[in-house]
Amino acid sequence: MKTLEEKIIREGKVLPGNILKVGSFLNHQLDVDFLAEMGSEICRLFSGSVINKILTIETSGIAIAVACAAQMHIPVVFAKKSKTGNLSGEMYTSVIHSYTHGNDYTAVISKDYLGPDDKVLIIDDFLANGKAVEGLIDIIGQAGASLVGVCCAIEKGFQGGGDSLRAKGIDVKSLAIIESMSDDSITFRAQ
Amino acid sequence: MKTLEEKIIREGKVLPGNILKVGSFLNHQLDVDFLAEMGSEICRLFSGSVINKILTIETSGIAIAVACAAQMHIPVVFAKKSKTGNLSGEMYTSVIHSYTHGNDYTAVISKDYLGPDDKVLIIDDFLANGKAVEGLIDIIGQAGASLVGVCCAIEKGFQGGGDSLRAKGIDVKSLAIIESMSDDSITFRAQ
Repeated sequence: MKTLEEKIIREGKVLPGNILKVGSFLNHQLDVDFLAEMGSEICRLFSGSVINKILTIETSGIAIAVACAAQMHIPVVFAKKSKTGNLSGEMYTSVIHSYTHGNDYTAVISKDYLGPDDKVLIIDDFLANGKAVEGLIDIIGQAGASLVGVCCAIEKGFQGGGDSLRAKGIDVKSLAIIESMSDDSITFRAQ
Repeated sequence: MKTLEEKIIREGKVLPGNILKVGSFLNHQLDVDFLAEMGSEICRLFSGSVINKILTIETSGIAIAVACAAQMHIPVVFAKKSKTGNLSGEMYTSVIHSYTHGNDYTAVISKDYLGPDDKVLIIDDFLANGKAVEGLIDIIGQAGASLVGVCCAIEKGFQGGGDSLRAKGIDVKSLAIIESMSDDSITFRAQ
């Protein structure tokens, strides 16, 4: 998505530790008109698929998931992050390792909101090593739901998570894929 | 908002500890078409005011804030919750006590995204004792921004936070105000 690549170049800041700050529009301040444009593009990319639920994970995935779901007129479910694995049987859970924070957390979804009839598109703001997406796919499996695909706004291609999911046959589409980045340049994968 | 009161009666569950579960549409699964209706109602309630930024706090405020901002075509900024008070000088911070979890956390907003030109509407999913809103108002003051008003989806009137803010002259509007609730009945304040 050319306009997203241009916005990343214009507003993004590369910080040490392979961090890309896009807080001006995606995950601290939210540019709602641009979120709607990204939502339209996700609708277009998956227009050939039957989808009846969008799944994301708190916090930063919620805004783009809502912006897209508003155009598809289907519900969003967001997984909650819990420090404890000790949760009631009413929940699907999956333990996810966070490289950013160097710890494990548990993604939790109530069994009330995901089941065998659901055809699920996973949406998130970033896709890096793919551990969060793998946790959500694990939960979709537990629920007996179907995974339609995965769409993230910004994929850090150099961290390999997206390509590893594609190698398993999963339909992963990202609005912008960063091949490499440094203080003064960001290179995108041609799509 | 009559349709919200009806939805709370139909889908809400009252749990011990004055907890109202509305995870089917507001803070776990998200009913995006209904979020858009709530967003329209907030636009109507504040149509006489000049607003150029919506402020909320992670996690559950984000969806309704985005749904409203999408119709006002203005940015959302969401405060992040941090366990540590030890943050860089680039941030506005305010310590908030959580009665639900029995601990303190720090609400954090980058100085890049809030300043003296901002006319701010605070939006959140719930208003109970009002401590989270007070923290956001504290940060608006630090930024030299102007507070236009506060709008929450569901106010727990019996916990007093909303009325305490109104007594200070703050324009607090809630889409539904619960006066009392028990296992088998929920009573709303006439508005």
